[in-house]
Amino acid sequence: MSKKILDSIQFPEDLRKLSKEKLPQLAKELREFIINIVATKEGHLGASLGVVELTIALHYVFNTPDDILVWDVGHQAYGHKILTGRKDIFHTNRQLNGIAGFPKRSESNYDTFGVGHSSTAISATLGMAIASQIKGETQKQHIAVVGDASIASGMAFEALNHAGIANTNILVILNDNAIGIDPSVGALKDYLTKVTLYGAPDTDNIFEALNFKYSGPIDGHNLEELTSELKRLKNVPGPKLMHVITKKGKGLRQAEENQVTYHAPGKFNALTGDLVPKDNNGLPPKFQDVFGETIVELAKENQNIVGITPAMPTGSSLKYFMETFPERAFDVGIAEQHAVTLSAGLATQGLTVFCNIYSTFLQRAYDQVIHDVCLQNLPVIFCLDRAGIVGEDGATHHGIFDIAFLRCIPNLIVFAPRNEIELRNMLYTAQLGLEHPIAIRYPRGRGSITDWEKPFSEIEIGKGICLKEGTELAVLTVGTISEEVMKAVDAISEKEKFAMYDMRFVKPLDTKLLDSIFKKHQTIITVEDGVTKGGFGSGVLEYASEKNYPGKIKLLGIPDYFPQHGTVDELKDEAGISIRKIKQFILKCLQ
Amino acid sequence: MSKKILDSIQFPEDLRKLSKEKLPQLAKELREFIINIVATKEGHLGASLGVVELTIALHYVFNTPDDILVWDVGHQAYGHKILTGRKDIFHTNRQLNGIAGFPKRSESNYDTFGVGHSSTAISATLGMAIASQIKGETQKQHIAVVGDASIASGMAFEALNHAGIANTNILVILNDNAIGIDPSVGALKDYLTKVTLYGAPDTDNIFEALNFKYSGPIDGHNLEELTSELKRLKNVPGPKLMHVITKKGKGLRQAEENQVTYHAPGKFNALTGDLVPKDNNGLPPKFQDVFGETIVELAKENQNIVGITPAMPTGSSLKYFMETFPERAFDVGIAEQHAVTLSAGLATQGLTVFCNIYSTFLQRAYDQVIHDVCLQNLPVIFCLDRAGIVGEDGATHHGIFDIAFLRCIPNLIVFAPRNEIELRNMLYTAQLGLEHPIAIRYPRGRGSITDWEKPFSEIEIGKGICLKEGTELAVLTVGTISEEVMKAVDAISEKEKFAMYDMRFVKPLDTKLLDSIFKKHQTIITVEDGVTKGGFGSGVLEYASEKNYPGKIKLLGIPDYFPQHGTVDELKDEAGISIRKIKQFILKCLQ
Repeated sequence: MSKKILDSIQFPEDLRKLSKEKLPQLAKELREFIINIVATKEGHLGASLGVVELTIALHYVFNTPDDILVWDVGHQAYGHKILTGRKDIFHTNRQLNGIAGFPKRSESNYDTFGVGHSSTAISATLGMAIASQIKGETQKQHIAVVGDASIASGMAFEALNHAGIANTNILVILNDNAIGIDPSVGALKDYLTKVTLYGAPDTDNIFEALNFKYSGPIDGHNLEELTSELKRLKNVPGPKLMHVITKKGKGLRQAEENQVTYHAPGKFNALTGDLVPKDNNGLPPKFQDVFGETIVELAKENQNIVGITPAMPTGSSLKYFMETFPERAFDVGIAEQHAVTLSAGLATQGLTVFCNIYSTFLQRAYDQVIHDVCLQNLPVIFCLDRAGIVGEDGATHHGIFDIAFLRCIPNLIVFAPRNEIELRNMLYTAQLGLEHPIAIRYPRGRGSITDWEKPFSEIEIGKGICLKEGTELAVLTVGTISEEVMKAVDAISEKEKFAMYDMRFVKPLDTKLLDSIFKKHQTIITVEDGVTKGGFGSGVLEYASEKNYPGKIKLLGIPDYFPQHGTVDELKDEAGISIRKIKQFILKCLQ
Repeated sequence: MSKKILDSIQFPEDLRKLSKEKLPQLAKELREFIINIVATKEGHLGASLGVVELTIALHYVFNTPDDILVWDVGHQAYGHKILTGRKDIFHTNRQLNGIAGFPKRSESNYDTFGVGHSSTAISATLGMAIASQIKGETQKQHIAVVGDASIASGMAFEALNHAGIANTNILVILNDNAIGIDPSVGALKDYLTKVTLYGAPDTDNIFEALNFKYSGPIDGHNLEELTSELKRLKNVPGPKLMHVITKKGKGLRQAEENQVTYHAPGKFNALTGDLVPKDNNGLPPKFQDVFGETIVELAKENQNIVGITPAMPTGSSLKYFMETFPERAFDVGIAEQHAVTLSAGLATQGLTVFCNIYSTFLQRAYDQVIHDVCLQNLPVIFCLDRAGIVGEDGATHHGIFDIAFLRCIPNLIVFAPRNEIELRNMLYTAQLGLEHPIAIRYPRGRGSITDWEKPFSEIEIGKGICLKEGTELAVLTVGTISEEVMKAVDAISEKEKFAMYDMRFVKPLDTKLLDSIFKKHQTIITVEDGVTKGGFGSGVLEYASEKNYPGKIKLLGIPDYFPQHGTVDELKDEAGISIRKIKQFILKCLQ
């Protein structure tokens, strides 16, 4: 077996010693390296395969890390990680205490800006470029690599609008593969497709209108073209945009052909590309599919239902609805702010709007939730997927702040289903017509009930339930964590001492039920899978303070830190909300 | 005195009965009406004067409210309110129980969408247009009026990007006056200026690139031109953008010449336009000026300091810094998301970044605060002006959620100065270098200390102080509300019973001080000028729960509703946090 070029490269300085002719071979090896590891260790595949040549070209031409390179989102940064000192630990990608699946400042000085959510790279890079200008570092280069789905998001436009007049040395690389996680949408995408097919228009194109020097479209898999154009742009002053056309999944046939599936394919055969089949037989459904299938069922009866997703039709399973009722379902692209206010607009006209946004992405539309929906008390139904700890995607993707940031908003109902049936019934209840907007938060992954497609039944708003009576201590939960709590209690010898309540509604709290709990129990424990500060337990404390409850209330939830990446179980244990830790906590409270 | 045309108009249906020739006279009368009332009642002036003709033309051509008209931001909607049934109550504008200063759905069915923060109108209107499409209401028109400063904000772009492919009947009117509250900035503004001066380019302009049919530029003060073009566009299918050039303050010389001052000029002489002089002699400074003057003072010594504002140089008083150090101060336009991530980018390069955003506008950049600043633990200094109740601007402008939504973010320090000197000293402390990001929240208006320009002294992070010892009950506050609490306590006969603590830091809480308070006092009251749910008091409850504090803790803050408009004092009283109400609350706790 011949010695590989990749073996000789630990850092970009090694790469820059290579002759240009060797770069295509390196690209081949880097691609194989990524495929081989992701095939067994899982992770994001397609995006990184698409930018193998671009990654090599950037580190070859620019003097990283002195020249600053920022990757937007970071799904595509595996090649970058491998070429910047992390080849030997790349197999720990996304594992507890391993390297992160996204660029991360604390991991490497080549990771100039931590990412995870889209469209931040131009703002961050512009900040760095302005800093260089202030410090008189005139030779420093600042490069942001942004995908075509990301650049259509509002904050990227805000950054372009500022960069266009800031006169710093900034190069935006538009990595145009016409797809994010799902295919890109929107007018800009259509425009870019035209530019790709027919070339840029003779007068100002859209980027030139914003005072950028435009270069492209360029074949993103041609190392010769890439390196020579990057070299040229190094000496062009002011804001520049290089439009690079790439193919997501490049180099693995199945990944090129099934770009959505191979965004993060799970385990696959590295040689053939075939997915390793999963045996899901008999498993409970994913919560996203309970949402996706139930909304279709409801929409068949209720013509008023519309569905909105900001660029997550597959991840949220809204795609089922989009396929069945294309005229009533809208993927608006990576545009959470727009998604929420669009939903509000639809709701003013009497439509029943399901707006499905991952918990972590709703942070992008907080003001719109407050003003456009809740202040106007419009009955938009927010379905917040991926609430709680999400696992391997790590710190930027956990949905752990939602309870705290939603609980303070007047008019909003906040509900967390204990299982699939409760999610299904709340979707049913919500579309019957509520007097207020509602946020329904549910976790990533599977529930606990296989036989979930029961006849619909209405859930009374603001009503909690007693899961189990008990003689001493009452444990209060919201959402699926009640499963873990139940198991924790079951593992305690004196389990008859513990009452268990599923409060179901973070807001409005079931104050009647709480009053009765206050009467019966001298100690209350609240358990939640969100942050403790300002969370569900905090709401119980507030009500207890109002009622002068004399007993003890102890709060268990995610403490005040950013959980990183690992399996959901590992991270829950670290955060203190695994079955084992819940049990310990309960026993300690009993003392 | 001849009968006025305006007298004959209560609703747009009256307006539509007029012959076209009478419209210019009506415009003159409407302008006078606005000037006369705002001159004595105060409010936003310039924006409404600028769109008098446009307002008349829109209601004349379109069949409002069946045709849907959405005003972005709403500063400019006074003429609209006057022509849609609210002429006789317009003098109650912005007063408690009077009409709101912004469009508001509950006020009129002509106010199709409540606004206040910018750039929501296109999203909302598109939602309505899609609803019409689904309902088969093919004749319905949907019009969004958006300023040039607002359309440069990210979410407006997201909406344009979607509208460009949605194929609904939507008309976006770009009201281009080259100014928001302060002059517009950014590459798009330069582009629009070029279009205004030299006409639209021969090939696609930037809006046509997004698949809009572009019409303009049109003289926004020419009723003939406006009405005929609007009539034409009524019959053009698909997304359309009409570019209208207006002058902010049109028709009042001083308002045209001093557009920033006359955005909301306070009282003025309706005939001459001269401002009614205010006697500020001997008054304490505005908090914004303490910020504005102190940052200049600090920046003279500390070359590392940079200042960022999203379109509020005047309102935040960052303008002083911009005038003194133009190369280190950046108005990025209405782009809070970009402002925060730009700040993070600057901070990665070792600069000391003051990012000044109104508390209510920070809601627009919540995800960026969490990810780009706090997760990376970058020591950005957020200065949150207009925290708490702001008064006449009403529900969309109160800064009452910040404590709740910031308290749950790891790594972030949250501080609220009791007075000008504390603000000044915290600005000083922060720029010495902190290990974490910090949010400093302070209210609209004036403080309590005239002699505030004292030598700087450092504030210990996380350290509260005892303002007054007491024998029974301890009152804990953060921020300027301690003034009111002090007055409330002073008005109680047994005031020696009350200890008072200014905790200063919402986060980290001074746990050592709290421990000593728990030891000394069996009853604790927390008072804050933000929402109670998840707020400062909630944090005290959480710590007390952790420490098994057996005493009573009672929380006073803004209850779970949206305060509307009125004076700050009126609204504080309504919310239960006026001096009078604080006193009542304390006395009740003593029982």
